[in-house]
Amino acid sequence: MAVITIIGAGMMGSALAFPARENGNTVRLVGTPLDREIIDTCRKTNRHPKFTRDFPAGVEYYQIEDVKTALDGAAFVIGGVSSFGVDWFSEEILPIIPEDMPIITVTKGLYDTEDGTLLCYPQLWAERLAARGMKRNLNAIGGPCTSYELVAHDQTEVTFCGSDPDTLRMLRDAMKTDYYHISLSTDVVGIESAVALKNGYALGIALTIGLNQRAFGLDSELHFNSQAAIFGQSVREMAGLLAMRGAGTLDNLCVGAGDLYVTVYGGRTRLVGILLGRGLNIDEAKAELQGVTLESLVVAERVARAVKKKAERGEISIGDYPLLMHIDDILTKKAPVEIPWEKFTKETF
Amino acid sequence: MAVITIIGAGMMGSALAFPARENGNTVRLVGTPLDREIIDTCRKTNRHPKFTRDFPAGVEYYQIEDVKTALDGAAFVIGGVSSFGVDWFSEEILPIIPEDMPIITVTKGLYDTEDGTLLCYPQLWAERLAARGMKRNLNAIGGPCTSYELVAHDQTEVTFCGSDPDTLRMLRDAMKTDYYHISLSTDVVGIESAVALKNGYALGIALTIGLNQRAFGLDSELHFNSQAAIFGQSVREMAGLLAMRGAGTLDNLCVGAGDLYVTVYGGRTRLVGILLGRGLNIDEAKAELQGVTLESLVVAERVARAVKKKAERGEISIGDYPLLMHIDDILTKKAPVEIPWEKFTKETF
Repeated sequence: MAVITIIGAGMMGSALAFPARENGNTVRLVGTPLDREIIDTCRKTNRHPKFTRDFPAGVEYYQIEDVKTALDGAAFVIGGVSSFGVDWFSEEILPIIPEDMPIITVTKGLYDTEDGTLLCYPQLWAERLAARGMKRNLNAIGGPCTSYELVAHDQTEVTFCGSDPDTLRMLRDAMKTDYYHISLSTDVVGIESAVALKNGYALGIALTIGLNQRAFGLDSELHFNSQAAIFGQSVREMAGLLAMRGAGTLDNLCVGAGDLYVTVYGGRTRLVGILLGRGLNIDEAKAELQGVTLESLVVAERVARAVKKKAERGEISIGDYPLLMHIDDILTKKAPVEIPWEKFTKETF
Repeated sequence: MAVITIIGAGMMGSALAFPARENGNTVRLVGTPLDREIIDTCRKTNRHPKFTRDFPAGVEYYQIEDVKTALDGAAFVIGGVSSFGVDWFSEEILPIIPEDMPIITVTKGLYDTEDGTLLCYPQLWAERLAARGMKRNLNAIGGPCTSYELVAHDQTEVTFCGSDPDTLRMLRDAMKTDYYHISLSTDVVGIESAVALKNGYALGIALTIGLNQRAFGLDSELHFNSQAAIFGQSVREMAGLLAMRGAGTLDNLCVGAGDLYVTVYGGRTRLVGILLGRGLNIDEAKAELQGVTLESLVVAERVARAVKKKAERGEISIGDYPLLMHIDDILTKKAPVEIPWEKFTKETF
């Protein structure tokens, strides 16, 4: 049994306390400066304010000022910040984690540089640390997993990725349960890309739900032909984007397809897509969802921006990504939804 | 504008009368010997008994004894029989269709031979016709399309496949509308396999819904982590099966993934899966759904049988198909549902 320190008491970080603690590990859940009230609540009730189930008995809760105590003697750290917390995590937390203490992050996302290079967070952090003469053992969790279903013990399969197989095996041994199943991969770029790329495409599928509500009424039954058409096109475009990243393997594509599937039903991205499909523009949709964080839209914009830069340099063909480009127009140019269905058809002779 | 003769007045054949007729073609819908009452109803009401919407004005209805009249002058024939009607279609109908009249079938399925070879229906029919010294221009429709959503004009993308690009283009020109989008492919085996292979896997995803109902109550919310885990594994196994058929292209896999997506929500396969997941064995589940035709189960059994034969000969590894094998055990050995989650995990180093 090990000591596991989770930093970030959002839903995903907190959900990982369940398998971690149920395996008999000592689990220390540390809030970020924004999680102060969450930690207070957890201490009082032993339940995360957004969960419907108590934490397993024995999870320990820490405010951020006690983070060093929480790190003392830990076998590894789980980074559970949102994508809006990655800079804080990289500047304030990574440097105080001992060099030999592995870190595994659940933050999904991609960062794009000026020249159109997409970096996943372990890459971004490694670069920033290197600039300060530092190095950490950085790993990540990808794959289809919503926090509230993990808390409910729904059967879940994820992939732990990192550069060192022994570290990955140690992490798996500490975390795997009879409902939390863990694949391992040294293809960090591939796994992290697969699970980030799906964001724009999940929005795309949700658009069709809103379009049908506009056409057939808000209470109309869900239609799936159009969702499935977008799903197929999404898998095609994701395969292209993975190949663009040198990660076009079937393993990565399957992780991406599974993650796309779960995200279509996740809350926030779906809601935005439906509102857009009903006829709102992106500003109106965001206003409707005031206060909801929409990390997925940020990622979709970054991916589209990178694709356009690569296309300008002739490295890829923009015509291979009609769905992503339409989603980008919706997000960045307030374009109305007009899905280019015919562009998805092809002749394979 | 052309004359299009549809043979088989089931839901899918009948649904295709919508785009066909809305494009201004003359459409003749011919019932099989089992469709006699359907044709009577259509004549009286201009509506298929299972649809909630009238046919477009002008569709003509024929009983089977008038099939030759219905074929007279047709530009092509749409075969709309169920998989239980393929023998009848091949023995009774194909021979009376003129040799130069293209045929496009919507019947999805695969037929397995003694040695574990899987044949799609165009292949099976071509072999049978050849044995009688005959030849027909056989094409097929694959891709995610449920009949009732096509009738509702939900945006739909399918693939027409056949050996002759010019025939395929003619068929597309006659059928495509602003809601029915058509890709073309000469990879008949690939497209037909992709859309048939998904049957067992759709059942697999539905199992998790029933398992969760058993664990959390019949009225519990849907969980998607487990559905997504099965979805990812399904895409992986389908890719392997397509490769086994010499059809392991991304195009085919995307058609299969989209078709799997739509089938998870289609009625009958989903229902069986849920009942099995709740704890019924296959006999009990079938009894519960008395009278419902379950073509998908037949296809899943055939595919599993073919895979086992190929594995016995060392041509493939049975260990690559843990989900298909479990589904086969459920269907053929009345095995209880016990999804081998850990077998889906892997190490990619």
